[in-house]
Amino acid sequence: MTFSLSADELVAICGSGRLEGTTTEKIRAIASLAQARPGDLTFLGNPKYRPAVATTQGSVVIVPEDHPGAPGTNQAFLRVANPSLALARVCRRLEQDLWPRPPAGIHPSAVIDPTARLAAGVTVGPLCVIEAGAVIGERAWLEAGVFVGRNGRIGADTRVYPGVKLLAESVVGDRVILQAGVVVGSDGFGYETVRGKHEKVPQVGHVQIGDDVEIGANTTIDRARFSATVIGEGAKIDNLVQIGHNVVVGRHCIICAQVGISGSTTLEDYVVLGGQAGLAGHLTVGRGSKVDGQTGVNSDLAPGSFVKGSPCLPYNLEQRLNVLRKRLPDLFKRVDALEAARHLDRAAPPPPTA
Amino acid sequence: MTFSLSADELVAICGSGRLEGTTTEKIRAIASLAQARPGDLTFLGNPKYRPAVATTQGSVVIVPEDHPGAPGTNQAFLRVANPSLALARVCRRLEQDLWPRPPAGIHPSAVIDPTARLAAGVTVGPLCVIEAGAVIGERAWLEAGVFVGRNGRIGADTRVYPGVKLLAESVVGDRVILQAGVVVGSDGFGYETVRGKHEKVPQVGHVQIGDDVEIGANTTIDRARFSATVIGEGAKIDNLVQIGHNVVVGRHCIICAQVGISGSTTLEDYVVLGGQAGLAGHLTVGRGSKVDGQTGVNSDLAPGSFVKGSPCLPYNLEQRLNVLRKRLPDLFKRVDALEAARHLDRAAPPPPTA
Amino acid sequence: MTFSLSADELVAICGSGRLEGTTTEKIRAIASLAQARPGDLTFLGNPKYRPAVATTQGSVVIVPEDHPGAPGTNQAFLRVANPSLALARVCRRLEQDLWPRPPAGIHPSAVIDPTARLAAGVTVGPLCVIEAGAVIGERAWLEAGVFVGRNGRIGADTRVYPGVKLLAESVVGDRVILQAGVVVGSDGFGYETVRGKHEKVPQVGHVQIGDDVEIGANTTIDRARFSATVIGEGAKIDNLVQIGHNVVVGRHCIICAQVGISGSTTLEDYVVLGGQAGLAGHLTVGRGSKVDGQTGVNSDLAPGSFVKGSPCLPYNLEQRLNVLRKRLPDLFKRVDALEAARHLDRAAPPPPTA
Repeated sequence: MTFSLSADELVAICGSGRLEGTTTEKIRAIASLAQARPGDLTFLGNPKYRPAVATTQGSVVIVPEDHPGAPGTNQAFLRVANPSLALARVCRRLEQDLWPRPPAGIHPSAVIDPTARLAAGVTVGPLCVIEAGAVIGERAWLEAGVFVGRNGRIGADTRVYPGVKLLAESVVGDRVILQAGVVVGSDGFGYETVRGKHEKVPQVGHVQIGDDVEIGANTTIDRARFSATVIGEGAKIDNLVQIGHNVVVGRHCIICAQVGISGSTTLEDYVVLGGQAGLAGHLTVGRGSKVDGQTGVNSDLAPGSFVKGSPCLPYNLEQRLNVLRKRLPDLFKRVDALEAARHLDRAAPPPPTA
Repeated sequence: MTFSLSADELVAICGSGRLEGTTTEKIRAIASLAQARPGDLTFLGNPKYRPAVATTQGSVVIVPEDHPGAPGTNQAFLRVANPSLALARVCRRLEQDLWPRPPAGIHPSAVIDPTARLAAGVTVGPLCVIEAGAVIGERAWLEAGVFVGRNGRIGADTRVYPGVKLLAESVVGDRVILQAGVVVGSDGFGYETVRGKHEKVPQVGHVQIGDDVEIGANTTIDRARFSATVIGEGAKIDNLVQIGHNVVVGRHCIICAQVGISGSTTLEDYVVLGGQAGLAGHLTVGRGSKVDGQTGVNSDLAPGSFVKGSPCLPYNLEQRLNVLRKRLPDLFKRVDALEAARHLDRAAPPPPTA
Repeated sequence: MTFSLSADELVAICGSGRLEGTTTEKIRAIASLAQARPGDLTFLGNPKYRPAVATTQGSVVIVPEDHPGAPGTNQAFLRVANPSLALARVCRRLEQDLWPRPPAGIHPSAVIDPTARLAAGVTVGPLCVIEAGAVIGERAWLEAGVFVGRNGRIGADTRVYPGVKLLAESVVGDRVILQAGVVVGSDGFGYETVRGKHEKVPQVGHVQIGDDVEIGANTTIDRARFSATVIGEGAKIDNLVQIGHNVVVGRHCIICAQVGISGSTTLEDYVVLGGQAGLAGHLTVGRGSKVDGQTGVNSDLAPGSFVKGSPCLPYNLEQRLNVLRKRLPDLFKRVDALEAARHLDRAAPPPPTA
């Protein structure tokens, strides 16, 4: 990626912040504190890396307003309220330069049913397939090899990366981002066992994805048995996540990579699930709950819960039990010693009373 | 989805059942007990939701034969032996109306090697690729963008969803369902380390999938190092599952989402693996065994086992240990108290005997 | 697969080894010891299967040099230093016969931007998409339906299986193998929460994959927030693995299926991660460390560590704690007994001293 920005231009892009020190370097790249060299922009986002600020060779360093140090020679600090957010804004500006949106239009190799309706400003990449009755909203951008099944709907300004499969009847809101390889609307996993054979329960519902949702690469979201599997507005879902049929993900939830949510479970708003967590079916996870990575949830959680472990317990209890577990070898020795002492007492018993 | 069925038509579709009460509503949708409104069909499949039957507004409610309640005003109960199975049959009927099978034929954009053989009644969607020597059985339906490699074989009446990759030499039975993004026949993971470099062990076997199998979205099944990785007849596999090389999955097994099975492990028939379970390699899991979610299996399991935990233990033992674990803080206190008491005794020892 | 090799030809392919006994059979297939029949090659790779050598019906058996048994009637032993490696070499020879590389050339259905540069001897399969500025190295083989985004680079002799998505700016080395469905360069998972909404942090870095790497089916590797997510030379990654943004995987690491690595974590060289292990972000895992399956790592690991459990502990300690855990029911009983004994003592206290 090639760009060139002065320290003053960076301040303008961030929208606020105070420049301290000066540099003659133009900023041409971004790097971590440890790897930055002259001409690089760097930043202190995680307090863990604070000592690295004093030695970084980056030309402009975005730091928190109250960072105690001072810039070095030919180096500027850009002091802001939230360095990560400031960097995000710089990156957004770079992104537009690096990967400009292609002009609207339909690639001639795309296969589009005549009954599909495409709004103004839509971009459809090569080798996409859009089936009967599908509706694509204004300025939506389908990259190469995207599949939109029968009656699928994609909202305005939504971006769909290569190889996404959006199966029949799926509904996707506005400003949604679907990363490469996402599958929306695969059949839910349901069978009735009749005389030793698992008879398929047809899945005649659909998937409904709200506005401003992002879904990570190769994640799968099953259609409902009936009615809808729902992903609430503003929810962010990472890669390789499995969302079962009839799950409801609340608004602004955060679901990290490789989480699995079994059928008919509901997340209320602002729930955060750590990576590889697993949730059983037919549960309700209360608003704002946090579930640690690799945790197993098999009962409802009250709003504001914070749980860990498999099966999960309140976070602090689980941490305490993990500490005590490490002391088990010692505990066994202590009980051995108590028994030995008791045995000694009995070998030499106290004299009879009275 | 649009349909309209009377209560009597529902009875006919279910094939059996007794209607109690009457409704003037035509059934136009399916919903859960809590969400059902007039015009909806609903059902009691999970006893957990029994109280919701009394208050549901659904017009027809499928309930177990011995459900104690009675229908409300303008409401009918349909009493059946197995409500979930009855609903499945209604859904199957709806499915045929909603998503009729397209007519047989080959989309002109498909790329098919002249040596491939396609039986009568096959449907090949847009942008499929079928390589040399492949054989597609009668009435098989390949949706858009399916890849069938060299010498691949797909059985009769099998349905392959968009973006499935079936690599060279893979064999798929009759009436199989492969959900979107499935990969069958990727190389097994095998290396020999020679002077610090991992030298690839070529994987020259294949994958063999029996009749009536279903495989979930983005699941991966590796080809064998030699001979075959086998998925037995009637097995059902959920999304994002990993099946290693030379694994044998028995007939009618159920494998939930995100399970991983390492190379050369054998599941006998009717094994059930809960979500995110992991199995080490070269094991045998006996017929009818059940493995709980997130469980780690690293030794053979006798037929009929039921295990939980990582590493796994018999289910009841694991549950008991989890209960005792929560009592560890108390146990440590009790041992502290015993030691303090013992210390007290020694500080004020009993008088010498005799 | 069809081939026919004499025992002497097998010796030549293995490059070394000593033949003991003779067989009139030509070798036409490979099978495990238990399943081998006359005409099959079999081998003893895992000591677990040693007893099966005496009863195998295979015509040629590859065994370790010091294997104590002797071949049966019409059977030959091929004694070698490393039977698995010898078999790998036979398989490599078979592979070339079974799946010969197609001739170089571009399938007419591929969609290739005129600014992309393809070196000599490249094979591009049907329905590939190669975007502006991409560079494909000599003899690289892209199978059907591969996507290479803007400015993507693929090295010489690299093989890309069907349906791989290589997003903008991704760099792939020489002799790399990307299995079907791999996604390289999806956006990292990063947001800043501003007034209750998660604002996307644009991910303007890329992915850099070294020479001789192999990546398994449907695995996802996120692009860096800035600079690069790096996969070191010779690393081998299994199916359905998630690699977060700015992760650095060292050279010759082995990462088993369904592992998840959170953002900015570094693996030094020769690290081995067991299946379904999960690593938190911003960690360093020292050279040559081993992480057992399903383990959770949430702190740095010194070089040569061997850990297990979630959260992880040194392997031997974790194993010991698992043994003690099984003895908890007994420990609780022992403490009960000590308390009862103490109670008894107090009910019948020793006489007052003095």
